[in-house]
Amino acid sequence: MKLFIAPRAPNPRRVQMFIAEKGIPDIEEVPVDLNGGAHRTDEFRRLSPHARVPVLQLDDGRGLSETRAICSYLEGLHPEPNLMGRDHTERAFIEMADRQAEWYWMALIAQAIRHTHPGLAPLEVPQFPEHGKVQAQRVRDSAKRFDGMLAKQPYWAGERFTIADITAFTSIEFARGLLKFRAGEEGFTHLQAWRDRVAERASAQV
Amino acid sequence: MKLFIAPRAPNPRRVQMFIAEKGIPDIEEVPVDLNGGAHRTDEFRRLSPHARVPVLQLDDGRGLSETRAICSYLEGLHPEPNLMGRDHTERAFIEMADRQAEWYWMALIAQAIRHTHPGLAPLEVPQFPEHGKVQAQRVRDSAKRFDGMLAKQPYWAGERFTIADITAFTSIEFARGLLKFRAGEEGFTHLQAWRDRVAERASAQV
Repeated sequence: MKLFIAPRAPNPRRVQMFIAEKGIPDIEEVPVDLNGGAHRTDEFRRLSPHARVPVLQLDDGRGLSETRAICSYLEGLHPEPNLMGRDHTERAFIEMADRQAEWYWMALIAQAIRHTHPGLAPLEVPQFPEHGKVQAQRVRDSAKRFDGMLAKQPYWAGERFTIADITAFTSIEFARGLLKFRAGEEGFTHLQAWRDRVAERASAQV
Repeated sequence: MKLFIAPRAPNPRRVQMFIAEKGIPDIEEVPVDLNGGAHRTDEFRRLSPHARVPVLQLDDGRGLSETRAICSYLEGLHPEPNLMGRDHTERAFIEMADRQAEWYWMALIAQAIRHTHPGLAPLEVPQFPEHGKVQAQRVRDSAKRFDGMLAKQPYWAGERFTIADITAFTSIEFARGLLKFRAGEEGFTHLQAWRDRVAERASAQV
């Protein structure tokens, strides 16, 4: 199988970290030059019609895109260690936590960066900086709620490390680099402690 | 179980339509007054910390929020008719289609409406109408791609009706009402034919 990625982009990194947690050895990484528009070619769109990375090309040639769908497939192929839930109730609550990490954390961070950072200008045309600033404020509002959650539980979905931590961690690292967001310096000490705990995992080095 | 909903909001309607497809009889619907701010009370936040509908209150009192997570739980409880895939490969490809319906269709429609429609002003503060107009254009760009997809297959995930059709259908109905979007009138005849086919299902009447 081949995994098409873009260096530094958070969604491919989610899949890379998921693969590292599982220890899956046989997936070849293929970098795609987003700033050069390599994802908008006809050839790439045959694999990923919406021109997105990551996309996993299966051995039969089919393209499976969408980060979380790729992880669901890999969890089915390599069930251990379990990252997405062992029965339908646990799967649903982990999916809830993962989606909260996506919609109220990652998506806000991505919008804030895409609409304000000069480096993202080629990908977000036109940028609306005022809209981006409102999203950056919402990142703080969400940080406050997630900080309160992490005061009561060690991981985003509860007592153990799951896919939701991968989504939230790759996002906070993206925010650290491009939004200059430091949870601890802004008073979110539980969020910072969780971030530091996850950063020590071998999978966080990908 | 109790399902907290908001009349006319597309996300609660996704779960309502999913329940109707399954024929699940024992879920009580509880309306929440979003314009009156009923979702922002401390009592509601104990059930749904991010103040969102829908949320399913389980019989043990726990709140399960996030539309697709609620559907995953209900699919586990009531496996037939299958709407989310029978093995891990099919589940992953249906999840891909469902996420494409969410991110490149529903989210664009929601952003276009939230930033331009006076009726949504209490929920989107501040509105950025110019940003909303760009999103409305992107709705058309996506419509073109999904129209091409539906020229080759009858449903969003392929040969059969799945959760991805529910996501896409509740979104196009939201766009029909508030964006005045008519797929057929804009030349997207395959998208219109799919919409009309889904609109005939009993579950579309919820």
